[in-house]
Amino acid sequence: MARPTIALLTDFGAHDHYAGTLKGVLLSLCPEATLVDITHDIPPHDVLTAAIALAACYRYFPAGTIFLVVVDPGVGSGRRGLVADTGDYRFVAPDNGVLSLVFHDSPPRKVVDLTERRYARPTVSKTFEGRDRFAPAAGWLAKGIELSAMGRPVSQWHVLQVPEPEVSEQRLTGQVLLVDRFGNLVTNIDRKRFEQFRQDGGIQIAIDGRVVEQLVATYAEAPTDAVCALFGSTDHLEVALNGGNAAQSLGLGRGAQVRIDRS
Amino acid sequence: MARPTIALLTDFGAHDHYAGTLKGVLLSLCPEATLVDITHDIPPHDVLTAAIALAACYRYFPAGTIFLVVVDPGVGSGRRGLVADTGDYRFVAPDNGVLSLVFHDSPPRKVVDLTERRYARPTVSKTFEGRDRFAPAAGWLAKGIELSAMGRPVSQWHVLQVPEPEVSEQRLTGQVLLVDRFGNLVTNIDRKRFEQFRQDGGIQIAIDGRVVEQLVATYAEAPTDAVCALFGSTDHLEVALNGGNAAQSLGLGRGAQVRIDRS
Amino acid sequence: MARPTIALLTDFGAHDHYAGTLKGVLLSLCPEATLVDITHDIPPHDVLTAAIALAACYRYFPAGTIFLVVVDPGVGSGRRGLVADTGDYRFVAPDNGVLSLVFHDSPPRKVVDLTERRYARPTVSKTFEGRDRFAPAAGWLAKGIELSAMGRPVSQWHVLQVPEPEVSEQRLTGQVLLVDRFGNLVTNIDRKRFEQFRQDGGIQIAIDGRVVEQLVATYAEAPTDAVCALFGSTDHLEVALNGGNAAQSLGLGRGAQVRIDRS
Repeated sequence: MARPTIALLTDFGAHDHYAGTLKGVLLSLCPEATLVDITHDIPPHDVLTAAIALAACYRYFPAGTIFLVVVDPGVGSGRRGLVADTGDYRFVAPDNGVLSLVFHDSPPRKVVDLTERRYARPTVSKTFEGRDRFAPAAGWLAKGIELSAMGRPVSQWHVLQVPEPEVSEQRLTGQVLLVDRFGNLVTNIDRKRFEQFRQDGGIQIAIDGRVVEQLVATYAEAPTDAVCALFGSTDHLEVALNGGNAAQSLGLGRGAQVRIDRS
Repeated sequence: MARPTIALLTDFGAHDHYAGTLKGVLLSLCPEATLVDITHDIPPHDVLTAAIALAACYRYFPAGTIFLVVVDPGVGSGRRGLVADTGDYRFVAPDNGVLSLVFHDSPPRKVVDLTERRYARPTVSKTFEGRDRFAPAAGWLAKGIELSAMGRPVSQWHVLQVPEPEVSEQRLTGQVLLVDRFGNLVTNIDRKRFEQFRQDGGIQIAIDGRVVEQLVATYAEAPTDAVCALFGSTDHLEVALNGGNAAQSLGLGRGAQVRIDRS
Repeated sequence: MARPTIALLTDFGAHDHYAGTLKGVLLSLCPEATLVDITHDIPPHDVLTAAIALAACYRYFPAGTIFLVVVDPGVGSGRRGLVADTGDYRFVAPDNGVLSLVFHDSPPRKVVDLTERRYARPTVSKTFEGRDRFAPAAGWLAKGIELSAMGRPVSQWHVLQVPEPEVSEQRLTGQVLLVDRFGNLVTNIDRKRFEQFRQDGGIQIAIDGRVVEQLVATYAEAPTDAVCALFGSTDHLEVALNGGNAAQSLGLGRGAQVRIDRS
C-alpha cells in the first residue's frame, strides 16, 4: 500500500515551532506518512494568498494527497472546521474561504463539519486549533478514517470574494492579486478571458496608468530591465521585469489596476 | 519496524546549504529515516529561543523521535556535545543549555558526553560540528547504536538561566521571552502561576507600563486592533493584537516587562 | 530496495507555491521518493550562489541521490536542460553553469541534453520549466529511467566563470564570493592555495583595506566582537566576527577584496 502524502500550507512562518509541532502531531498519528511543506510563509492571516497558492499547486500532487491548510485568523472563534473530498484529494481547513478556489475548480463530492471530538486532541487550545483539531483530523484521514466519521455533511461554506476582471466593449480591467518572490505582479486576468477580449485585435496593456510595451511569451524574451507582460505558470497575466523585480521597481503590489484597451 | 524520525532544529537559516548538508549526512547513515524540519530560523546563536521552541514542540512528536539541535555559538571551542535519553525521546546537541528546558520538563534517564570518535566523521571541522559530530551521532542513533556507546555518562550539564517571574503580595512581574511570527509577545508567566496569584480576585495587566484592557480566551474575542492578553498555545501569558502585530505596534520585544497588579 | 532520495535546490523562495508544486510533481511520478529541501532561498537568479551551495553539500548525500537544481534566469529561452551522472550522483538542471563547480570537482561520466518529450509534462510552460521539464526528469530518474533515454549525450556545457585568486610574489588577492546567514564573508581562497602562498612565513590579511588581526581556527577562539579570519566548513578563508555579523558590521559583501601580504 502506498504511503499517504500530507501536504502542509500555513501562515505559521519558518521561525517558530508551530509548523514543526503540526508535523509532530501528524507523524504521531501516522508515522508512515510522507509530509510535504508547500509553504509556511503565507503572509499572516492572508486567506486570499493561501487560497490562490493552494489552487495553483494541488493538482500537481499525487491522487490521494491530503492537504492540511491552516491560515486561520478566526482561530478559537465559532467558525467551523471543514474536511472535504474532491475525489482525487482531501482537504482539512478552517471554513474561511481558503478552500473555495479549489472548490470552484474541483467541486467537492463531500464536505463535513469537523466536529467529532474523538479525532481531535483531548484538549483543544483556543489559540492553536491547527495543532489540536486540524492536524489530528489530517492524521486520522491518513490512517484510514473516513471523512464521514468526522462530522455531519454540510452543503454550504464560506466562499472567498476574489475580485473579478471587468469587461466593457473597449476595455478589460483587472487587478494584481499577488506578488511572487521574483516581484512578478500576478493579476486576476486569465489567458482565456484575455483571448476572448482581444479576438486577435490590437491591444494596449497598462498597469497603474503606465503602458507596458511588451507582451511576451517568456521572461527572457523581453529586453533586460524592460517591464513586460506575459502569462505565467498558472496562465494568468502578470507584469514582470526581465532580470529585475517589477513590484519593487514600479512600487506596486496587490490591488494595482491593470487595464487592457483596444488600440 | 517503524522508520525512525529525526527532527531538526537549528539556526542555520534557510538560505545556505548548511541545513541541507545535515540532512545529507543523516540520510547517508540512515536512508530510511524520516527527516522533519522543525525550524532552521532560530535567530543566529540564540540558545534561549531554541530551547523554548524545542520545549514547546517535542512532546507532540512520536515516541522514539531523535532531535538534532544545533544552535551552537561555541562551535569549535571546548564545550561538550551531549546525547540524552528522556525515555520517549533522544536528543543530540551542544552542551550550552539548549536542552535544559526539556530536561526540566522530562528529566533525562541518561546523558552522555559525545566523545566516541567512531560516530563522528573522520575529519571534524572546527566551524561545522553540526555536520561532522552532531548529525553523525543522530544518524547512528537512528541506525540503532546505543547512546551509551557514544561516550561516558555525565550527571551535570549547562542549565540555561531563564528569567523567572517575581511575585509579591500585590504584584506578579514577568517579562517577554520571545516574539512569534504574528507579533505575539510571549511571556514567562504560565497559567498556573497566574491563577495562583489571581485567586479569583480582580487584576490589572500592564506591559511596559501600558495597561492591557482585555484578558481574553482567544485572539478573535478581542475587538479588532485592540491589544489583549491571553494564554497561548504553550499556556503562557502573551500580549497580542487581534488582526495586527503587537510587537510592532507597541514597539516592544524580548525583555519587555509585564506587570500584574491586584486591583 | 532503497528509497530514492531527491534533493532540491532552487531560488523559488519559501513564500510561494512553486517549490511545493515541484514536490507534488516528484511524488506523483515517484511516491516512494524521499524529498529533501536543501534550500529554496538562493537569491533570485543567482546562479553562482547556487553553484557554490550545491558544490558545498552534494558529497554529504547518500550515493544515488538525484539533485534537482532550478535557478534559471533563462527559463523559456533556448538554453538547454541537462541531466548528468557523476557516478555517485545524478543532477537535473538548466545548462547555465549551475552544475559546473560540481563538474569541476567530480567530472561527469555522462551528460545528456534533456530533450525527450515523453519525460516532460504534456504542456511545458515557458515560465515554469522547473515544474514541467526538470522535476519530471528527476522523478523519472528516481523511477528507474536511464539518463541516456532522456536525450543525446553532450560533451560541452556552460561553465561558470568563478573569480580566481591572483597570486604574485608578495601578495595573494582574492575576493568575497558569498555571505552566509551568520554574516561570514566567504572568499575564493581555499586552504591549499593559502598554505602554498604562506609557506610558513609571516603574513598579513586585509579585507577592503582593513587589517584583520586574527587568523584563528574557530569562531570562539577570537575575542568577542573581534573581526577574525578562519577556514570555514568548506575550507575556504572567511572573515567573521565572533558573536556578531561581519558583513553588516564591516558593510561588505560579495566582491569585497581580500589581500594577503607577506609581512
